[in-house]
Amino acid sequence: MSLATPLGAGAEFDRIRGFAARWRERAHGLGDDCAFIESGGDVLAVSIDLAVENVHFRRDWMTPAEIGYRAASAALSDLAAVAAEPLALLLALGAPAREPTATLDGIADGVGDACADAGAFIVGGDLSRADSLIVDCCVIGRATAAVRRRGAKPGDRIVVTGQLGGPLAALTAWRRGGTPAPAARQRFVRPAPRHEAARFLAQHRARAMIDVSDGLAADLGHLLVASDVAGHVRCEAMPLHPDALAAARETGEEPWRFAARSGEEYELVAALPDAVTDAELAASPVPLTVIGTIEAGSGVRATLNGAAGSLPPGHDHFASA
Amino acid sequence: MSLATPLGAGAEFDRIRGFAARWRERAHGLGDDCAFIESGGDVLAVSIDLAVENVHFRRDWMTPAEIGYRAASAALSDLAAVAAEPLALLLALGAPAREPTATLDGIADGVGDACADAGAFIVGGDLSRADSLIVDCCVIGRATAAVRRRGAKPGDRIVVTGQLGGPLAALTAWRRGGTPAPAARQRFVRPAPRHEAARFLAQHRARAMIDVSDGLAADLGHLLVASDVAGHVRCEAMPLHPDALAAARETGEEPWRFAARSGEEYELVAALPDAVTDAELAASPVPLTVIGTIEAGSGVRATLNGAAGSLPPGHDHFASA
Repeated sequence: MSLATPLGAGAEFDRIRGFAARWRERAHGLGDDCAFIESGGDVLAVSIDLAVENVHFRRDWMTPAEIGYRAASAALSDLAAVAAEPLALLLALGAPAREPTATLDGIADGVGDACADAGAFIVGGDLSRADSLIVDCCVIGRATAAVRRRGAKPGDRIVVTGQLGGPLAALTAWRRGGTPAPAARQRFVRPAPRHEAARFLAQHRARAMIDVSDGLAADLGHLLVASDVAGHVRCEAMPLHPDALAAARETGEEPWRFAARSGEEYELVAALPDAVTDAELAASPVPLTVIGTIEAGSGVRATLNGAAGSLPPGHDHFASA
Repeated sequence: MSLATPLGAGAEFDRIRGFAARWRERAHGLGDDCAFIESGGDVLAVSIDLAVENVHFRRDWMTPAEIGYRAASAALSDLAAVAAEPLALLLALGAPAREPTATLDGIADGVGDACADAGAFIVGGDLSRADSLIVDCCVIGRATAAVRRRGAKPGDRIVVTGQLGGPLAALTAWRRGGTPAPAARQRFVRPAPRHEAARFLAQHRARAMIDVSDGLAADLGHLLVASDVAGHVRCEAMPLHPDALAAARETGEEPWRFAARSGEEYELVAALPDAVTDAELAASPVPLTVIGTIEAGSGVRATLNGAAGSLPPGHDHFASA
């Protein structure tokens, strides 16, 4: 079989392509943010998201409740990415045998809060011993009017929700042994899946959409490959989180470059028909910024005030370190 | 909130009860083998099952394909436990960054084989770095005529599919540094979720059902608590795997006791109305054995040839070691 939705570059995606080739006709519809299951005339969107201690989070950075909130939100964001209405979450939790009850209760509270904020119910789970904390969330949503990665057309406007760079600003501070600025930290530990904005974008004829989990360039890259188009990003237009400006100054990077490689944003990137007006976009429940245009061809073309540039690659869990 | 389906004893279940108390009205229908989601007039059953290296499997015991087959089958068995028809599986896979591709490909092959055997498609997943192997499977099935844990009535016959004790015979051999007998090893590394038998039992008026994952006594205990009844198990009637007999001789245990504490069997235990005849049971695609009777009251009462006995507790991941 081939992937229903082609994936962009990256070692992780090479592996997924390898799996799809092995599974052949046993696999269905891999490669979008969610799987889609038809049931009784309805369509459900389903996604699974694995968060592992010291890979996705560190205990000295976050409280157990924040670990739970963040892991659940990462999964719920996959529903937002296809404009599906959150219904249910299943939680598989791994922890050391002697882990204090307070840790597990805290994670459960965080998962519960994220579900409450998204309007989803916790309907099941599994609990296992493990060497370190594992928080794996499977989410299910109603996808009556799903927006997928494919569908963008030359001439479409590329929009992004919110501001980019906050999570990486927090991560940069922690990695240096420092303390993140409160707003940047909040973006990292309590991300806000963009369910309302997703509904707005779907209602405003979004043709293709994805959430930013691995960095703008990487995720936009998937959307472009899936849609078989190219994208032109005007880097000067990128909406920057205030703390990303300060963090980029410290790393000596251009702020837009810093923001573009920030992962786990859970902001949405969408392709909208050119006919959708600025006045329409201004009514979004989360600010939308037009950062570029879909073009014919392939790949991402970046410019900074008209001069050629390049966007940094995203985070890849399986790239050689 | 209270659990929709009450759980039996055990430290793991104490924790789940604790979660349910914290989540209150944010949780729905916890405590059965699957969660049930209504969609477009249909009902879907969903379950998640986490398999962790050195907790659920060891690499020196099993090939990567066996690790994958077993992890997927454990999840698929939750669908059999409620007589749901397997539709789809999502695979979240964690592995060390430098893990050879062959390991991941092997696990993927095993998951694919288990799905092929169950008639399910692989529709999505997630791939992450982790310190050790993590195989987390979320399964979705059609539950048009679901059989739940609750519903057993005094006078019902308790039946079990297949033979018990094979997986523990394999485990016992490995733990002693030995080599399991081939048939016992096969029961451990390539368990067979009882989808056909589940369909047969549902068609033959099964009133309550569960799969044996933590040991007969533990899982029957959940069914009894959920149904608010007691059970009488005639230990001499327990169907024993041939290799369990030899293994029990070595441990000096009574074979039925050995078989009753064997977990990860993925056999089904069901309560059937007394009116279902032996001739009807004989037509099952997997041999069924009547091992006891549902009674009024609570708890499991065990007898051996008429004399009072007791069944061993099941495996509990969170009991103090």
